[in-house]
Amino acid sequence: MGKLLVVGTVAFDAIETPFGKTDKILGGAATFIGLAASQYQVDTGIVSVVGDDFPSRYIDLFRERNINLDGFEVVPGGKTFFWSGKYQHDLNMRDTLATELNVLADFNPVVPKEFLHADVVMLGNLHPEIQASVLDQMQGVPKLTILDTMNYWMDHTWDSLMKVISRVNVIAINDEEARQLTGEYSLVRAADKISAMGPDFVVIKKGENGALLFHQKQIFFAPALPLEEIFDPTGAGDTFAGGFAGYLTRTENISFGNLKNAVIHGANLASFCVERFGTERLLDLKSEEIAARLQQFKNLTQFDFEVQ
Amino acid sequence: MGKLLVVGTVAFDAIETPFGKTDKILGGAATFIGLAASQYQVDTGIVSVVGDDFPSRYIDLFRERNINLDGFEVVPGGKTFFWSGKYQHDLNMRDTLATELNVLADFNPVVPKEFLHADVVMLGNLHPEIQASVLDQMQGVPKLTILDTMNYWMDHTWDSLMKVISRVNVIAINDEEARQLTGEYSLVRAADKISAMGPDFVVIKKGENGALLFHQKQIFFAPALPLEEIFDPTGAGDTFAGGFAGYLTRTENISFGNLKNAVIHGANLASFCVERFGTERLLDLKSEEIAARLQQFKNLTQFDFEVQ
Repeated sequence: MGKLLVVGTVAFDAIETPFGKTDKILGGAATFIGLAASQYQVDTGIVSVVGDDFPSRYIDLFRERNINLDGFEVVPGGKTFFWSGKYQHDLNMRDTLATELNVLADFNPVVPKEFLHADVVMLGNLHPEIQASVLDQMQGVPKLTILDTMNYWMDHTWDSLMKVISRVNVIAINDEEARQLTGEYSLVRAADKISAMGPDFVVIKKGENGALLFHQKQIFFAPALPLEEIFDPTGAGDTFAGGFAGYLTRTENISFGNLKNAVIHGANLASFCVERFGTERLLDLKSEEIAARLQQFKNLTQFDFEVQ
Repeated sequence: MGKLLVVGTVAFDAIETPFGKTDKILGGAATFIGLAASQYQVDTGIVSVVGDDFPSRYIDLFRERNINLDGFEVVPGGKTFFWSGKYQHDLNMRDTLATELNVLADFNPVVPKEFLHADVVMLGNLHPEIQASVLDQMQGVPKLTILDTMNYWMDHTWDSLMKVISRVNVIAINDEEARQLTGEYSLVRAADKISAMGPDFVVIKKGENGALLFHQKQIFFAPALPLEEIFDPTGAGDTFAGGFAGYLTRTENISFGNLKNAVIHGANLASFCVERFGTERLLDLKSEEIAARLQQFKNLTQFDFEVQ
């Protein structure tokens, strides 16, 4: 069984959408990535940090899904990273109401012994030097390293970001981030420039407009599943990444053909994530539902005429 | 060989994009639809109206492509419909600078004898009563009727619009139009409501984010081909409709499976249209290029893992 190391935030989120609002609920990139990957029965370990305000029932949720928490630090007297946001009517726009780093400000991830030889390493959005420190700790070369980042690091830590990007196989960011990273509006040109920075594979997430996978001159596209209602987009991008990474860890095949499949699996899990607030839907997701929806993705995209 | 009747505008367009601007060039819905359909070697007839300022070289362009112009009226002393628009940086937003109806104000389409039994009728965006008058003239029941419309008719001629929508098999409109027509933000719900108005098939065009085909509870999605550069989006939606209608007229099969293929063919031709100003690229398009790009669509969307 493959091993997947996930490094990223575990957080409290408070979310407001046109459909309702929440108190502080479970959130964070590593949370969504880990929960999504746990659908693939791989050996997943989360490296993250929380304060001692973090409820033990949330920790139990991870343990029940066989997620290894040897690298999960609980800081005595510390407060957990908190994010609060409000979505506008069309759900593609959101305003950040609060960001309290708390224990995340001093996060110094330590990769547990059992994951020093992980097959796949998923670096959630964090300071690029912290992401690099994880790669430094790895023993041997992982089969695949995947990196997410955000505009903030492009503005403030450009050189460090370029260094860590040059060290990973896959970058998975959203369209706005790809545009800022390259100064190119066209995502085809943006992907070309990002490839030149190092990664063999570039994944550009477009929210409800799907995701693109670029490899050399090849392009693959996975749509988002058209839904009657998108309830809360929070975590959809990380859920996508978790499905992508989990599928690749299970199948242990990093050909372009199999990365296509992984993109479909990521889009599939993301389509569930948005159906309820936060992690609610992911926590209540059965393998039969996942398989049925994969069939919907096939129906949505597959056609079979001959090109003359 | 199937017959395709196209009713819609033939116009002068003056276009400004971030990449340049044009004087008055050939435009109009029926122009793009007809030129796209002409790639399918079907018997296409255009019913439209222009003024005597319309250059004979444009008329020759249609004739060279074997497009029947028996229903193409040239009004002596009249001026051709003129539209002028300016695209913003992201090309999804455009400002209309001028709309001069001219001869279009009194357009009274007469379906020529040879097309009274057309297999497929494509009603471009026009006053819904004018669209209905075309259906009234048809002898026998066409295999397929396809309708486009726009927000203006929803605001000003609602009842007439509902009547003509109830008479067609396929509606092909863009996402904003679908939302206005139904008051639903979700395109899945919008398509449900539009189906209830009459059409068996609902096509919702999303510009650079592709197109959705709805039929009962089935959904199919065709992406737009990711391009290095979108030069001018004018006419892309009509080119899509022309490829869609042309393919269906040639194949004479209106199953859901074949409509999927038609949506891919439409998206394929639209991907060429946007590469240059107006009709330039459509007029300079070889069948080998079309076939090669259909293969790109396959590569872009087809995957082959088994759903467990």
